[in-house]
Amino acid sequence: MENLELTSHDLEIDSLGPPKIPSPLGLSQVFGDNIANYIEDAESVVLELDAKKIEAAIKKNGYLPAFIKAGPRNTIFFDPSKTRVAIVTCGGLCPGLNNVIRSLVMELYYRYQVRTIFGMRHGYRGFVSKYALEPVMLTPEAVKGIHEMGGSFIGSSRGPQDIGEIVDCMERMNISILFTIGGDGTLHGAEEIYREVEKRKLPIAVVGIPKTIDNDISYIEKTFGLETAFSVAVEAIRTAHTEAVGYPNGVGLVKLMGRHSGFIAANAALALNEVNFVLIPELPFDLEGPNGFFAALKKRLLHRGHAVIVVAEGAGQDLFPEAMQKRDESGNMMLQDIGIFLRDQISAFFKKENIELSMKYIDPSYLIRSVPANAHDAIYCMQLAQNAVHAGMSGYTGIVVGRWNGEFTLVPLKLANSSRKSLSPEDELWLTVVEATGQPFTMKNDGAQE
Amino acid sequence: MENLELTSHDLEIDSLGPPKIPSPLGLSQVFGDNIANYIEDAESVVLELDAKKIEAAIKKNGYLPAFIKAGPRNTIFFDPSKTRVAIVTCGGLCPGLNNVIRSLVMELYYRYQVRTIFGMRHGYRGFVSKYALEPVMLTPEAVKGIHEMGGSFIGSSRGPQDIGEIVDCMERMNISILFTIGGDGTLHGAEEIYREVEKRKLPIAVVGIPKTIDNDISYIEKTFGLETAFSVAVEAIRTAHTEAVGYPNGVGLVKLMGRHSGFIAANAALALNEVNFVLIPELPFDLEGPNGFFAALKKRLLHRGHAVIVVAEGAGQDLFPEAMQKRDESGNMMLQDIGIFLRDQISAFFKKENIELSMKYIDPSYLIRSVPANAHDAIYCMQLAQNAVHAGMSGYTGIVVGRWNGEFTLVPLKLANSSRKSLSPEDELWLTVVEATGQPFTMKNDGAQE
Amino acid sequence: MENLELTSHDLEIDSLGPPKIPSPLGLSQVFGDNIANYIEDAESVVLELDAKKIEAAIKKNGYLPAFIKAGPRNTIFFDPSKTRVAIVTCGGLCPGLNNVIRSLVMELYYRYQVRTIFGMRHGYRGFVSKYALEPVMLTPEAVKGIHEMGGSFIGSSRGPQDIGEIVDCMERMNISILFTIGGDGTLHGAEEIYREVEKRKLPIAVVGIPKTIDNDISYIEKTFGLETAFSVAVEAIRTAHTEAVGYPNGVGLVKLMGRHSGFIAANAALALNEVNFVLIPELPFDLEGPNGFFAALKKRLLHRGHAVIVVAEGAGQDLFPEAMQKRDESGNMMLQDIGIFLRDQISAFFKKENIELSMKYIDPSYLIRSVPANAHDAIYCMQLAQNAVHAGMSGYTGIVVGRWNGEFTLVPLKLANSSRKSLSPEDELWLTVVEATGQPFTMKNDGAQE
Amino acid sequence: MENLELTSHDLEIDSLGPPKIPSPLGLSQVFGDNIANYIEDAESVVLELDAKKIEAAIKKNGYLPAFIKAGPRNTIFFDPSKTRVAIVTCGGLCPGLNNVIRSLVMELYYRYQVRTIFGMRHGYRGFVSKYALEPVMLTPEAVKGIHEMGGSFIGSSRGPQDIGEIVDCMERMNISILFTIGGDGTLHGAEEIYREVEKRKLPIAVVGIPKTIDNDISYIEKTFGLETAFSVAVEAIRTAHTEAVGYPNGVGLVKLMGRHSGFIAANAALALNEVNFVLIPELPFDLEGPNGFFAALKKRLLHRGHAVIVVAEGAGQDLFPEAMQKRDESGNMMLQDIGIFLRDQISAFFKKENIELSMKYIDPSYLIRSVPANAHDAIYCMQLAQNAVHAGMSGYTGIVVGRWNGEFTLVPLKLANSSRKSLSPEDELWLTVVEATGQPFTMKNDGAQE
Repeated sequence: MENLELTSHDLEIDSLGPPKIPSPLGLSQVFGDNIANYIEDAESVVLELDAKKIEAAIKKNGYLPAFIKAGPRNTIFFDPSKTRVAIVTCGGLCPGLNNVIRSLVMELYYRYQVRTIFGMRHGYRGFVSKYALEPVMLTPEAVKGIHEMGGSFIGSSRGPQDIGEIVDCMERMNISILFTIGGDGTLHGAEEIYREVEKRKLPIAVVGIPKTIDNDISYIEKTFGLETAFSVAVEAIRTAHTEAVGYPNGVGLVKLMGRHSGFIAANAALALNEVNFVLIPELPFDLEGPNGFFAALKKRLLHRGHAVIVVAEGAGQDLFPEAMQKRDESGNMMLQDIGIFLRDQISAFFKKENIELSMKYIDPSYLIRSVPANAHDAIYCMQLAQNAVHAGMSGYTGIVVGRWNGEFTLVPLKLANSSRKSLSPEDELWLTVVEATGQPFTMKNDGAQE
Repeated sequence: MENLELTSHDLEIDSLGPPKIPSPLGLSQVFGDNIANYIEDAESVVLELDAKKIEAAIKKNGYLPAFIKAGPRNTIFFDPSKTRVAIVTCGGLCPGLNNVIRSLVMELYYRYQVRTIFGMRHGYRGFVSKYALEPVMLTPEAVKGIHEMGGSFIGSSRGPQDIGEIVDCMERMNISILFTIGGDGTLHGAEEIYREVEKRKLPIAVVGIPKTIDNDISYIEKTFGLETAFSVAVEAIRTAHTEAVGYPNGVGLVKLMGRHSGFIAANAALALNEVNFVLIPELPFDLEGPNGFFAALKKRLLHRGHAVIVVAEGAGQDLFPEAMQKRDESGNMMLQDIGIFLRDQISAFFKKENIELSMKYIDPSYLIRSVPANAHDAIYCMQLAQNAVHAGMSGYTGIVVGRWNGEFTLVPLKLANSSRKSLSPEDELWLTVVEATGQPFTMKNDGAQE
Repeated sequence: MENLELTSHDLEIDSLGPPKIPSPLGLSQVFGDNIANYIEDAESVVLELDAKKIEAAIKKNGYLPAFIKAGPRNTIFFDPSKTRVAIVTCGGLCPGLNNVIRSLVMELYYRYQVRTIFGMRHGYRGFVSKYALEPVMLTPEAVKGIHEMGGSFIGSSRGPQDIGEIVDCMERMNISILFTIGGDGTLHGAEEIYREVEKRKLPIAVVGIPKTIDNDISYIEKTFGLETAFSVAVEAIRTAHTEAVGYPNGVGLVKLMGRHSGFIAANAALALNEVNFVLIPELPFDLEGPNGFFAALKKRLLHRGHAVIVVAEGAGQDLFPEAMQKRDESGNMMLQDIGIFLRDQISAFFKKENIELSMKYIDPSYLIRSVPANAHDAIYCMQLAQNAVHAGMSGYTGIVVGRWNGEFTLVPLKLANSSRKSLSPEDELWLTVVEATGQPFTMKNDGAQE
Repeated sequence: MENLELTSHDLEIDSLGPPKIPSPLGLSQVFGDNIANYIEDAESVVLELDAKKIEAAIKKNGYLPAFIKAGPRNTIFFDPSKTRVAIVTCGGLCPGLNNVIRSLVMELYYRYQVRTIFGMRHGYRGFVSKYALEPVMLTPEAVKGIHEMGGSFIGSSRGPQDIGEIVDCMERMNISILFTIGGDGTLHGAEEIYREVEKRKLPIAVVGIPKTIDNDISYIEKTFGLETAFSVAVEAIRTAHTEAVGYPNGVGLVKLMGRHSGFIAANAALALNEVNFVLIPELPFDLEGPNGFFAALKKRLLHRGHAVIVVAEGAGQDLFPEAMQKRDESGNMMLQDIGIFLRDQISAFFKKENIELSMKYIDPSYLIRSVPANAHDAIYCMQLAQNAVHAGMSGYTGIVVGRWNGEFTLVPLKLANSSRKSLSPEDELWLTVVEATGQPFTMKNDGAQE
């Protein structure tokens, strides 16, 4: 859906009721006193930036689609002294999980004086009695130092759990706010929990914090962990380059995360500009043929004697003889291993061409997922967490905390779950990749390009 | 000046003449072909994001202030085969200088086929004959690997040079485009060069790439090097924290860059959330008195036994007995050393109070300035450089490449030089700092707050 | 062979003739003048450290086996103004190659004033005409900055080349000293070159610098790159630990280098003490059975809920159904992939036992081999290179530069090539591993232990 | 004292009495069973390595001086079930403190089943009642993860405390073994405690673990933290180099630790070979005069345009007009700040000479002291700690755990405290520095050389 086609209905957010309790934050409501102001519900963040398009949209619809701005409100819904919070992390590890956990705790504890915060163990399993997982009591002392460590302090797990059981457990525990930190599957789960809570008319706010190292959540311009991921991926690219130039006709092939989107691959390739080919899910390519990838790679090798290739794990899935459609425990489509496939196919091609090749294949996966957040993500995680707390305490529910045009927003779970974000080959990011690598715009034999 | 008060005149940019040469980039002009499109001059980036304010501004002025968008144009002004380029870096070292230099060279050489690129040695000195500095010929081979090193490959220097001499030299060298990479002083110099070039009616484009580790250039939301700077500053904060908790009543005091703005200090304090006080130029504070800094620090120490303080170098300048107004070679006001001052004043205060203190002072300055760009800045530098090349080749002049709301823009030098950007204590960034540190909104004794 | 059984014949070294040219180094021959002294040929480094054993050996043999000490001699064999040097790097990349190359060049150029230094491209291939690889002229300017990069500046390759052709080429090039930097295969090659040179009575010194990241060269207590390797391997172990504790019954399995020896695996496991099992080539183990590895792992998982395993690539080769005996281009036995094997076997075992398992397998290989030397190895490489130059200039030949009991030594190639060094399970290093991991001394079902 | 002049009396170590309890470690006493063996008291490590000198010494004295080897004994003195241990860290922070603490706890707890381990807070203060510092109970759970953090988990402090009070406290607490981790002052304190314990005939073992980042403890070839220190110091040197080459006549001056010895300065300068001058306490130098430092620096600048200088903090103390003899709380002589002094003197010299200078001064001090141990030191700390536990459990007392010729040893406190180790300008380490920097052997004007 084009951004300017969104209606106010798509963008409006739900709340548990009018917030009547004065915020304990002590912020201001005037400018000029050097004290930050509360955010008002009317404040917003427009989706489009082009002046001409904005003027045309207003002219046409009398309306400019905009996200509601996140931030502290001057009244809140929950009485802090009675508020009980649950935090849960699901799915694969991602840099920044511990930063989010710690910042949620610090903000709840010190700024809102909330004293009862449960860390549910190992994802949604923590709510399900058969797993017998005791929650961890989260206090500033308990979370001391965890932001310097990778992984999740409260553990994670994959796969869905029974929504009814989860909500039963939240009722038993008398939870006021649930913060779910997770990706696609997790946020769909959060949406279902939100609906079940609504059905049962429970005063529980469900607030998502989007976690996907792949950065593929719609209407959220960047998810945490992405910056750390491509920063660490640079090591793999440096390795690939070093190995490639070290041997006659050296090829370094790096597989990076990105099941449906090439954000990590593209950014990593830009961050260490020694890459000659970036292959992403959004842009299909042929192997054989005059315009195919092999021809381009051969040309590069004959010309320069070495090459570095970065491939996102979801790229080239159409190249496999038949898609063996399997899904993992979390319901994600199981991808064929394009890294191993390319490694073997490239080797076979050059063997056939009788050209010597020194192929080095690098799959850094967990070495990226498990690191602590870098400085950029550490800040971002803190801001996401603080805004999630503001939203939850104000009684907003069925939402995720998002970011758009550099501002923090509140996005309905339904909208965030409506589709998957991907990198457009016509965006500036991809143009930068093409300019930086010198690779052809497309490597398909049909059609015109190149 | 408020963003919405800018007129189209403030935002319009100068060019050497109509670009008539077809771009060699081979981009597209239609959507849907998986090939990035050329940017049109009419594309823009609005300055404000709030829907209500935007609607009101259009209603009132019939006009929405917006930057012209940077990016490749489908026609260019300079004939690549005759284009001669000069690149210069001035002022203090800053992470990313070499990335910008290398990306300028790569983009000019490989995308526009420009073959004559001079690296002027040691800043504007490189244009002045008395220094006898031969320019370096910049080719892809010459700049190989420099993006992995800190500093400036072509050297830098401080202080202004004679504008006439610089332009004389450019005439002699038959320069088509000058790329100046530098901060406040450098961009003022660039503006003067641009005016002299205009006066002499020379066909030379002057394109600035804003470099200030302090991030204090107006109408540019982030300068390169900032992200690397606060990422590295984290090491100093970790040190301060380790030393502070290691001894009875330990205090770790870290001085960071920021002559007029607290961006590095604020971001670093957020990136490693072990900081209790952040002191910045934008927010004056008292040392003594019931609301002063010493009282707050004493309270912290008595309560927790250790404290970490981050001070920006430009903070608290009003605390010095008399401002010894000196300026350095580049014309920048020479600041008093607030780090040493605070170290001594804090020690004296606690001695007077008869409270034991273990004070550790850390000034990482050059250790931050001299590192290579991190992954984030590496990408940003490349994008700035590519956009600078697009602008220069298209004949735009008297501009800097900027960024606003996440998009690359072309900003008149005059506007960028019109004022200095600072961190508002009422912005969300500072609110995040206050929430993360727990420090008082203000530490002034007079009146409510400042 | 036991150290004390070595005879003086085993330890003596060959030279091209009496060195008659005064050294240009300007060292001293007296103590007390604050100037280092030349090393005399009579200086030595004993092989054994135990006083009782030493006394007994002298009593028995009248002789104490000792290496000849490396270092600058006061007279040299080659006239620097006429000396022509060739440097070659062979085999897999290893941290420190560029440090050795650069230090050889700096020492030859600045200390001995040797001006003609060839970097042979891509290993011994560089001497063989059919590959048409032009040597690189190595000067201080040419090797500037290479010590900050991984890989080999002059390239490497695998596999043997014709010894006669190599020596023919050296004759044509009028080489005085050949420095070969490489491991097992390379040093055997060097020994053959040395014998061919001897046969032809050429005045060419052949000096080896031992390079094996596995640290398995006899009579050399540590090869360069080992320290860097296990330092970087720590990242993989941290990842394995983070993933293991992040999920229910998490197992992190890390495969590290070590074809015949467990030095990297053992040291890495000590360097980040979160490892529960280290499996090395020197210590066979059973998978099944009451004392087998699976039983020990199961016990650990049931007790603690997570485990980290480090396996050296050469471990457990006897576990494969039949050893498919293949050799690579360099003649090294091709190992079965114990990492993949264990990953699958462990998963199968726990599936059979009906115990949930979250298995994460990490193979950092190239990410370790390709990094620059760390500080420790940088120093070590420099010292090896300086001592290699001293030895070569003095006309010693058929040797490698070694290290023993913390001193630099000159070791006959024949002795270094005589066997392969391995880690004894009864050494202190392995005891430290057993104490640090808590793993059983042995995991074999036969025999008594444990 | 020359090593071969030590008598067996100097090297013998004290014990609380015959160890009668079988070790719980389950090691072996035979070779060939793949299980490490207990160490016997007769095993030793000779002090000298030169075969000729050894033979001569035996001939002359009938005796070869050797340290007693550290390691597990097959009988121990203390009954683990009744053993109560105290651990204390004193003086400045040093990388590895937490590794030693954790390894002591892990070894005591898991290998010897000792369950009562006190971490005394803030050095010897923790024993003195007026400070009211409760000890921390140290368990594997309590020390989880501390090896990944710098500083001291149990805190440190400077300055001596009353020996009688310390021993009183140990008696009250019924301590069996005291592990003191500290440098010069701390080990002298430990020796006094040992004597007081002996006087009172208490069954308390006093075991030191030598901690001095400066590496200046006699008869111990390397103290922990040194490797980490020079590894991190490399960053400062890289910075100095980057700044030096970035400006006309750039000079980067780095002050490193080393009050009485130049080990850190020398090693750091070798580890990043971009240093032109290393100034250390062991080698006095003149500033002025034809052979002085200024002349050498001027020559370098005129020749190359930039220079990097590393100065150890204890260097050049004779250059200060009058030694203001002050001592700090720990009784260490307070040094004049040679870094600031040189910065100013060099600037003044070149001003006088009318030569432009761009001087950058870098003092990384705490940034080095506070980091976690690197991989090398992590292993070394673990080995020191394990050997300290073996020694303490066996009832050895009045000792420090040392290292000599690559082996772990037991060194009488008296011997370790007898003098201070320094770097001899005639050692190979310094020769390597001179060869790597190209600096003159001496920079004194008088006579030959010093």
